[in-house]
Amino acid sequence: MIDELSATRRGFGSDNHSGVHPDVLQAILVANDGHVPAYGDDVFTEQATAILKGHLGDDIDVRFVFNGTGANVSSLAALCPSWGSVICAETAHINVDECGAPEHIAGVKLVPVATSDGKLTPELVKPHLTGFGFEHHAQPSVISVSNAAEFGTAYSPAELRALADLAHEHGMRLHVDGARIANAAVSQGVSLREIVTDAGVDALSFGGTKNGMLAGEAVVLLGDARTEALPYIRKQSTQLASKSRFMAAQFIAMFEGDLWERCARNANEMAAYLAAGADALPGVEVTQKVQANEVLVVLPQKAIAPLQERWRFHTWDQAASEVRWVTSWDTVREDVDALLADLAKLID
Amino acid sequence: MIDELSATRRGFGSDNHSGVHPDVLQAILVANDGHVPAYGDDVFTEQATAILKGHLGDDIDVRFVFNGTGANVSSLAALCPSWGSVICAETAHINVDECGAPEHIAGVKLVPVATSDGKLTPELVKPHLTGFGFEHHAQPSVISVSNAAEFGTAYSPAELRALADLAHEHGMRLHVDGARIANAAVSQGVSLREIVTDAGVDALSFGGTKNGMLAGEAVVLLGDARTEALPYIRKQSTQLASKSRFMAAQFIAMFEGDLWERCARNANEMAAYLAAGADALPGVEVTQKVQANEVLVVLPQKAIAPLQERWRFHTWDQAASEVRWVTSWDTVREDVDALLADLAKLID
Amino acid sequence: MIDELSATRRGFGSDNHSGVHPDVLQAILVANDGHVPAYGDDVFTEQATAILKGHLGDDIDVRFVFNGTGANVSSLAALCPSWGSVICAETAHINVDECGAPEHIAGVKLVPVATSDGKLTPELVKPHLTGFGFEHHAQPSVISVSNAAEFGTAYSPAELRALADLAHEHGMRLHVDGARIANAAVSQGVSLREIVTDAGVDALSFGGTKNGMLAGEAVVLLGDARTEALPYIRKQSTQLASKSRFMAAQFIAMFEGDLWERCARNANEMAAYLAAGADALPGVEVTQKVQANEVLVVLPQKAIAPLQERWRFHTWDQAASEVRWVTSWDTVREDVDALLADLAKLID
Amino acid sequence: MIDELSATRRGFGSDNHSGVHPDVLQAILVANDGHVPAYGDDVFTEQATAILKGHLGDDIDVRFVFNGTGANVSSLAALCPSWGSVICAETAHINVDECGAPEHIAGVKLVPVATSDGKLTPELVKPHLTGFGFEHHAQPSVISVSNAAEFGTAYSPAELRALADLAHEHGMRLHVDGARIANAAVSQGVSLREIVTDAGVDALSFGGTKNGMLAGEAVVLLGDARTEALPYIRKQSTQLASKSRFMAAQFIAMFEGDLWERCARNANEMAAYLAAGADALPGVEVTQKVQANEVLVVLPQKAIAPLQERWRFHTWDQAASEVRWVTSWDTVREDVDALLADLAKLID
Repeated sequence: MIDELSATRRGFGSDNHSGVHPDVLQAILVANDGHVPAYGDDVFTEQATAILKGHLGDDIDVRFVFNGTGANVSSLAALCPSWGSVICAETAHINVDECGAPEHIAGVKLVPVATSDGKLTPELVKPHLTGFGFEHHAQPSVISVSNAAEFGTAYSPAELRALADLAHEHGMRLHVDGARIANAAVSQGVSLREIVTDAGVDALSFGGTKNGMLAGEAVVLLGDARTEALPYIRKQSTQLASKSRFMAAQFIAMFEGDLWERCARNANEMAAYLAAGADALPGVEVTQKVQANEVLVVLPQKAIAPLQERWRFHTWDQAASEVRWVTSWDTVREDVDALLADLAKLID
Repeated sequence: MIDELSATRRGFGSDNHSGVHPDVLQAILVANDGHVPAYGDDVFTEQATAILKGHLGDDIDVRFVFNGTGANVSSLAALCPSWGSVICAETAHINVDECGAPEHIAGVKLVPVATSDGKLTPELVKPHLTGFGFEHHAQPSVISVSNAAEFGTAYSPAELRALADLAHEHGMRLHVDGARIANAAVSQGVSLREIVTDAGVDALSFGGTKNGMLAGEAVVLLGDARTEALPYIRKQSTQLASKSRFMAAQFIAMFEGDLWERCARNANEMAAYLAAGADALPGVEVTQKVQANEVLVVLPQKAIAPLQERWRFHTWDQAASEVRWVTSWDTVREDVDALLADLAKLID
Repeated sequence: MIDELSATRRGFGSDNHSGVHPDVLQAILVANDGHVPAYGDDVFTEQATAILKGHLGDDIDVRFVFNGTGANVSSLAALCPSWGSVICAETAHINVDECGAPEHIAGVKLVPVATSDGKLTPELVKPHLTGFGFEHHAQPSVISVSNAAEFGTAYSPAELRALADLAHEHGMRLHVDGARIANAAVSQGVSLREIVTDAGVDALSFGGTKNGMLAGEAVVLLGDARTEALPYIRKQSTQLASKSRFMAAQFIAMFEGDLWERCARNANEMAAYLAAGADALPGVEVTQKVQANEVLVVLPQKAIAPLQERWRFHTWDQAASEVRWVTSWDTVREDVDALLADLAKLID
Repeated sequence: MIDELSATRRGFGSDNHSGVHPDVLQAILVANDGHVPAYGDDVFTEQATAILKGHLGDDIDVRFVFNGTGANVSSLAALCPSWGSVICAETAHINVDECGAPEHIAGVKLVPVATSDGKLTPELVKPHLTGFGFEHHAQPSVISVSNAAEFGTAYSPAELRALADLAHEHGMRLHVDGARIANAAVSQGVSLREIVTDAGVDALSFGGTKNGMLAGEAVVLLGDARTEALPYIRKQSTQLASKSRFMAAQFIAMFEGDLWERCARNANEMAAYLAAGADALPGVEVTQKVQANEVLVVLPQKAIAPLQERWRFHTWDQAASEVRWVTSWDTVREDVDALLADLAKLID
């Protein structure tokens, strides 16, 4: 019966619309043998943890969780007391797409900062570094950035380092929402270690789902941001999986033959190809740097609705006729060509 | 590489130690075709919801979540204001195995009640029905039971109805932690509708993971306990899956040919078989009714540690030499026989 | 011993630096006779409630609390679910001066909006009225304004009505942080009913402490914003006073002979007198409308530190050489003259 | 107008029904002179803090708060992470009289323990010292006792020391809800230092209101339980008073000439006198040790309602015909004699 329900078309609505990479599914199948201890006390978790340490260094604590909101909430709760504040871009996922979970569960205060490209800079952050030691003021405790950011832009290691240095000078921490960390690393042409550990990041929400997994992210605490509280935080945040072997098996698969990198590279390349094609069309303008797998683009107003009848994607800014397209690990040139062809017809 | 990590042995440590039923995995594979909208806006979710309505009635709201703690927290938040209290057995999962998540996330107060068998009765609950309208006192708002309970006992529809009536007389709600609701229904020889809807239950945490799924539970609100707040509660509790089709596909598979019932029936039968075999051994005593897939049993003290070297299971009550064995959807008679043979040898 | 500790000078640091009006102290003394039921079940509370109903209308619920943060947290918890958001000025007390209490206790999300004068307008609010019904987004539930605002500006009844209408059109509520509601009413030349009830306000944090009381505020819910949950919310927010008669007695005194109005009028007049005097000095510029008891003023940079050696007041904007002076119910012309004289000397 | 509202009768309903000691009111009057910095930055706070250090030792942190629930919530938040649990008597104020504030604001889990006299012992606590390091289980972090307890019983320094030692052996803390700490000290014939600091207490909610103050308690953290987080916790818990001088002035008065001790001694002596008188009546039985200012007593059922028509007091246990009488700093022998005379008449 399920067969009849399945869709076959690939679109540009979100990388969450894509399915699971076959290698990840295969790893789940292979892991599905006999009884295995639950809640992380299994060899798959052990191996997946070792793999992540191989990439990010030994001085980390890794905990697998279900989804990005869970990873972000657990990370922030580990870094920030309830009387602390988290400085983030106004457009950050934690600010606009988590239904207040950081405030409600971690109990923290978010301090949103307006940006032009979804990215924080030391200059943007500095005006908010006030009120230290003043009991009336939520204490600035964390700078949180998304890498890649929600506009399809990405931070370089140097840009992160500048934010990490600023945070550390003030006794604060740098958190990276890495739902698309693979896309960011590929975009910057650097290793995970270079864009996380070496850049001074204190906590990472390591994304897997958008990059070809079924469901799975990891909370990674680095260096002296590590805390024995993390297991309790994860459990209390409802993010501890019972049949944990399957979370870990997915991560193991993602690192076999650098699958994470191949998936992200494809998505990034397809985004670049899409952006180039779109930009060549009359009345179409790509509005942000395409540094990951998202393309923000202004379309002729008249083209948007008809195009959305054939393709599912979000209107980003109604007033500006700006929409967002997202490519995935499984996007192929034919998908892009089809979208652009449809668009070209509507523009004529 | 994963192959070498896999275990093959089946044990009695927990139903969470078991893997995924092949039909469930197959459904995941079939669902993995093309792009599909995320976050529940997909045909799989639509179908799985329809199936559950077929079983529980149309007047329900169903939301799929990742795990049992998430289902319980979301259910309680939907039923109980922050100034409300939840009356539960002292041994309830929400009280002892969720690291304070109900208190922390739903913000509610738990009122634990001592029981002999893990089950609440109206007589046990009534002394706690006090302080209504008294602003100093957290307002009794929910009676929460686990069915099956953590001792392997189960509530009949009549027992639930008595608790539901008591709750409703006081303007309260009845919540069922149904991590093992399938085992309870099979145990009582009734349909899901009889043991949930018809018994007056207001909210159900519908369990899937322990009964053969990879990861997946559902929050079900019934009748006038339904609330438009549920989607926000789920999202804010970090329990909204992005690639939601895979959550739903698992549930669809669980209801194909009543797989849920077959899995639970096997687990229950194996528990009965295990209990009978154990009870026949000298110095071994089954201490609770075996109405689901858990066997609580007192062993000779000297046998416990050696047996745990070969079989992973929890000591339930150190002082009483009481341990807990759990059977699963995949337990076979040979597994039980092997455990009992090892135990018999240790008792000699 | 206490005598030696007492200060005698009146300054411009904050209206919280002022003491208690003698009539309020007298009321406390008079109330201090014999035993009286606690927690609001007393004739003083009854009378104070009746007085407030006389001013604001019968369709209100009044609960006395200790302080402004408590009043705001209780008000917001009564108006807004945990998955709701509260739109407020970036400079609102709830956003910058309550150490994250609204987020932590009410569990809500704040959406800060940049303003030029501390006041929200429908135009400023509208861009944030998005995401209704979208489960990822905290649901816009409350517009919260401070009247008088933190810049010394005040909302007219018409301005409030416009915000109330906007809120109600979207199923939202209008909350007023009225720590200085008396100053606002006097400033606008209207009654409390006109600036609260008739303006469409749904909830008011009614301020007493800054206007001559020892400690005491009230949460007022109006019309269909009333909820039976309020007593529990107040108690759970730690804001229920045991010896409640003394909270109520202060309020009774504040309404004897319109003491609230006389106190606020004096503070407002002294602020106007101060602003006029300051503005006449060379290099000094009053930067905001003086509509209550606060004066924001740019001083010659060189004058600030020496003046702060003699007078305690806050630097509002370091970069702009802007400081804040606050007048009180007990400020007299001689105090203002002394401040201005000191300032004039420093400017020369 | 207030005059007509005043009551003159003294009763036995609660020590919260009593008023303010004249010396405390006088201190408030004296402190009401001129402008003084707010929020604790004043000489009264400085002096009151110094006085408490004189009594409890220099290695403490003192923060004044409004009420007992606020003191308890702030104390627990300072001692216990959100994933921690607080072991307390089932009858503890934090468990039954704070409307879930500890769970909601501090986010902690309470573990209530049944007792016969409202007092915990190491034997009662030990069974709950389980699950350390087990992420599913809220981590036992605090033992919380009320001294004097809600039954009118009191802990000796030795009893507290035993609990403190038990707590410290397990890396936990001992919290004392000292709403009636003065009554406990007087009852045990020891100094505050002996019954707090020297007994190994880590945190104390120091009560003032019940013992003759208008409103005021203090959070005291001792030794290595001190934390820089306390000011933020207090502020975030809505418990920071703006006109803080008046909180401090009350405490200063309470320590002038050992007023705290005189008030508590009177209340305790009147309770003993009342208990002795009651116990001598036929059919009347004092049910708990009278070690502070509360008397639990079984009355003939027929006498309760008529007596409550003349005297306001709580029925403690309906089924057992048990009621609670509380004496205050201002109770005199004539009050007790009047109550007993009325009772005697009803028993005849």
